[in-house]
Amino acid sequence: MRNFDENSITEAVLQRFADCPDPRVKEISGALVRHLHDFVREIQPTEEEWAYAIDFLTRAGQKCDDKRQEFILMSDVLGVSMLIDAINHPPMEAVTESTVFGPFHVNNPPKFELGDNLAGAMQGDPMYVEGTISSPGGARLAGAEVDIWHSDGIGNYDVQQLDKLGGFGGRGVMKTDAEGRFRFWTIRPVYYPVPTDGPVGELLRAQGRHPFRPAHLHFMLSAPGHERLVTHIFAEGDKYIDSDAVFGVKDSLIRTYVLKPAGTAPDGRKMDKPYYYVDYDFVLRPLAASRQASSARNRTDAASASISYIPK
Amino acid sequence: MRNFDENSITEAVLQRFADCPDPRVKEISGALVRHLHDFVREIQPTEEEWAYAIDFLTRAGQKCDDKRQEFILMSDVLGVSMLIDAINHPPMEAVTESTVFGPFHVNNPPKFELGDNLAGAMQGDPMYVEGTISSPGGARLAGAEVDIWHSDGIGNYDVQQLDKLGGFGGRGVMKTDAEGRFRFWTIRPVYYPVPTDGPVGELLRAQGRHPFRPAHLHFMLSAPGHERLVTHIFAEGDKYIDSDAVFGVKDSLIRTYVLKPAGTAPDGRKMDKPYYYVDYDFVLRPLAASRQASSARNRTDAASASISYIPK
Repeated sequence: MRNFDENSITEAVLQRFADCPDPRVKEISGALVRHLHDFVREIQPTEEEWAYAIDFLTRAGQKCDDKRQEFILMSDVLGVSMLIDAINHPPMEAVTESTVFGPFHVNNPPKFELGDNLAGAMQGDPMYVEGTISSPGGARLAGAEVDIWHSDGIGNYDVQQLDKLGGFGGRGVMKTDAEGRFRFWTIRPVYYPVPTDGPVGELLRAQGRHPFRPAHLHFMLSAPGHERLVTHIFAEGDKYIDSDAVFGVKDSLIRTYVLKPAGTAPDGRKMDKPYYYVDYDFVLRPLAASRQASSARNRTDAASASISYIPK
Repeated sequence: MRNFDENSITEAVLQRFADCPDPRVKEISGALVRHLHDFVREIQPTEEEWAYAIDFLTRAGQKCDDKRQEFILMSDVLGVSMLIDAINHPPMEAVTESTVFGPFHVNNPPKFELGDNLAGAMQGDPMYVEGTISSPGGARLAGAEVDIWHSDGIGNYDVQQLDKLGGFGGRGVMKTDAEGRFRFWTIRPVYYPVPTDGPVGELLRAQGRHPFRPAHLHFMLSAPGHERLVTHIFAEGDKYIDSDAVFGVKDSLIRTYVLKPAGTAPDGRKMDKPYYYVDYDFVLRPLAASRQASSARNRTDAASASISYIPK
């Protein structure tokens, strides 16, 4: 095999996968080479452009650490994350929709009791959040794990300002009570730009796009017998609700963050200033109805595998 | 724009490029998103597979430094580098063919005089290399720059063993004489594996492929009025001449590395043991016939831009 031209090179590469021991690796490798070569043939890159792409990917990798994941961010702004989400969690009657995971989740977040304040040293307007977690039939899920993370009142996550905050804030995990309820105090999140100080920021500027996401609370919800749900509660009326930089907004996930006057909050706390309030009743998809349970492609441990990016 | 499904997400992302200020960035971004989404729709990745891809790209970026370029290597083993090469340097009558650049070039290599020995502390069989550089009409190119790099006698490049060698070896740059001739002593290169201690090695193992490249000398040749030529002289009869891991072999670039008996070498040196000999007469493409000169797509500085990956 020698002397490949602009077209014959593709078949030559595909032939190298003839002895690939894993059929799924062979399938993915073949599709990758076909689509990647088609892309290159279409755009006919100069060598200077190719070198720029190599450098761009290199800088993206080197921007990553245990608090920053530039490739997840790239996947998000190119719509790939929401495409993966759509493939793995197609809509199902009476089940809460999922959305993008994002780059700011942290494994082993701080634990809280129901009703605690997650804000830590975060600054912004106080907000009370409550709701329930159920199965599609209506059965409440007691002891379900509720993992929450979100920005502060000027649009920064805790992991972007750990030194200033002295630790996590606007982040934590708790368990639902016997009636499947959760509740907590925190800071009202606002719209914010995805991090633009790396290659993805460079990409957004080159493409003439704004980097903003409408205000949202991240939730990751887990209960035995149900598919883990990764989703948001978006704020109705947000300036960027129709132009989310990562394409994550779904109508069913939008709620009004209601401004309440000073007085007695739903948990009995006396508030001497106004605060925000939002509630959401989540419904989890039974594992039997999940792609993870039904797809022959998935490895047997896929249902329990973490989707979190685990830094080395 | 909300509520995207597995198909509508693609058009939603493309619409974000509406205000892209650079037509070429818009063209590349659009093609990238279409082909990338088609690839994802075809393979229907699980979230576990997507997380693996994110981690793979991250580790590739973090493997890179000023002596190692894992993304160039990835481009090479997926046939993308040779595709880029075919696009930018289509065959032209009487002009020497190009091939892959590879990950081992170093900017500002050591300078040598004609006839010098480039080997440094490299180990292996001695080899004498000579040849000429011309224009297609036959005119010899005096003062042309000849940049050479290659492996040692057991298949390692100098940059893979700088501590051991105490500096560069099998690497250097020189200028042709008034008759367009070059000549140097060095070590005969042998076949070798591309670096397999990073993500690309993991990929090759998963795909059931060997990592070897047939023995070759790298050349990068530059002369005023001509397109820079990046090419190899491959060794006839090499075990891997028909299965180069990076698809770089062309018949016109193969020469016999001739084993000569001890005695007087072509430059008059007395050799007390056998040595190898190879010669090659290179012909450079006039700039007027290069894609760089003819393509309206190229920026005006493209002809003089370096294709070397320049570490930060």
